[in-house]
Amino acid sequence: MQDDILTGKLQKLIDKDEILDLISCYCHGIDKKNLSLFMSIWAADAEYDLPRGRAENSEQIRQLVNKVWREVPKCHHHTSNPMIDIQNDQAIGKSDVLYFRQTSDGRRCWLSGGYDFEFIKLSDGWKIKSLKFSSFVEDSPLFQAFIS
Amino acid sequence: MQDDILTGKLQKLIDKDEILDLISCYCHGIDKKNLSLFMSIWAADAEYDLPRGRAENSEQIRQLVNKVWREVPKCHHHTSNPMIDIQNDQAIGKSDVLYFRQTSDGRRCWLSGGYDFEFIKLSDGWKIKSLKFSSFVEDSPLFQAFIS
Amino acid sequence: MQDDILTGKLQKLIDKDEILDLISCYCHGIDKKNLSLFMSIWAADAEYDLPRGRAENSEQIRQLVNKVWREVPKCHHHTSNPMIDIQNDQAIGKSDVLYFRQTSDGRRCWLSGGYDFEFIKLSDGWKIKSLKFSSFVEDSPLFQAFIS
Repeated sequence: MQDDILTGKLQKLIDKDEILDLISCYCHGIDKKNLSLFMSIWAADAEYDLPRGRAENSEQIRQLVNKVWREVPKCHHHTSNPMIDIQNDQAIGKSDVLYFRQTSDGRRCWLSGGYDFEFIKLSDGWKIKSLKFSSFVEDSPLFQAFIS
Repeated sequence: MQDDILTGKLQKLIDKDEILDLISCYCHGIDKKNLSLFMSIWAADAEYDLPRGRAENSEQIRQLVNKVWREVPKCHHHTSNPMIDIQNDQAIGKSDVLYFRQTSDGRRCWLSGGYDFEFIKLSDGWKIKSLKFSSFVEDSPLFQAFIS
Repeated sequence: MQDDILTGKLQKLIDKDEILDLISCYCHGIDKKNLSLFMSIWAADAEYDLPRGRAENSEQIRQLVNKVWREVPKCHHHTSNPMIDIQNDQAIGKSDVLYFRQTSDGRRCWLSGGYDFEFIKLSDGWKIKSLKFSSFVEDSPLFQAFIS
């Protein structure tokens, strides 16, 4: 393959694969309360924006995810429909997410929302530079139930 | 890489990546009522087949999606399990979909179904040539609730 | 592309693409009761571990999936968040899964769980060597309803 265009497209596929892994890691990390996995996906100055709080660097992200884990004993995220636009060492993207949440009062909810992402390629690979969650239906949850 | 086989496999990965983006665009376009994004994914003579109506060209697709938006104020699609079979400039594929729907009477439903796709590679990239939705459980919705 | 590193990364993308297809095939096979598609994804000595039973070779897998189909007339799986770690001709991986289940008593449930996988590359391509389901919430289902 002498073709520089093909090589450039291959590099984009490699980059996108790493970026999609970050999104999967976000879910596996937060859902299984795996702090080291969860923290490994962020750039040092990353922004993390949830309805439950906002963080602007690694230490604040660590505090925010621990707040989530205190207030939401169980959650399970399922991401879909990724769209990633890579420009050299930066990328923006979005995905949808179905989100199961069980709070400490025993309430179970399904939420449907989306993530807006910024990514950056650092010396140790792609990292999340910004993650913002938006609820799809303002008056979420979509459904709820109580454990009987 | 002198290997023609590897180059052919790379081309298939590039093609598949573009095709998966079409499926994501379908969801983001219809869910966010983004007409230009939604219309950008179709070949001019594409077929679009929903329980709610059927279209056989761009103008009919535009009318059908506007009908959907009138009748279904809010929907959120989450696709999964894509299988794409590419043969040169044509491809067939399928995916599953979880589908949240809130109709104008305030009813919220979860549906589970699938899409059958045909794709075609035109001068401006891969496009959807045919999209047909099938409900997985005939007596859908799976679950429903009313906004209180 | 003289670069051996790029060629190696391309091979990993090709391998990962085939592995992700196995996960999609698992879902399409079991949900549509397509036995030949379902059986095509397994190595001969594969292990298949469900709450409903356990199998350690092709014949036992065939028996187990037929047991599932007898006890669960309808199911629909939606996988997400794949993470695949490939080392030459072997790989381990995991994914999340949302799972709709309609049992013969008319009960409809949503379950949320995960799969742990082992994969192996044989002469006829990648196959599943091990699949184990784990429920995310011990006291599943998350939600249930009865057909009215």
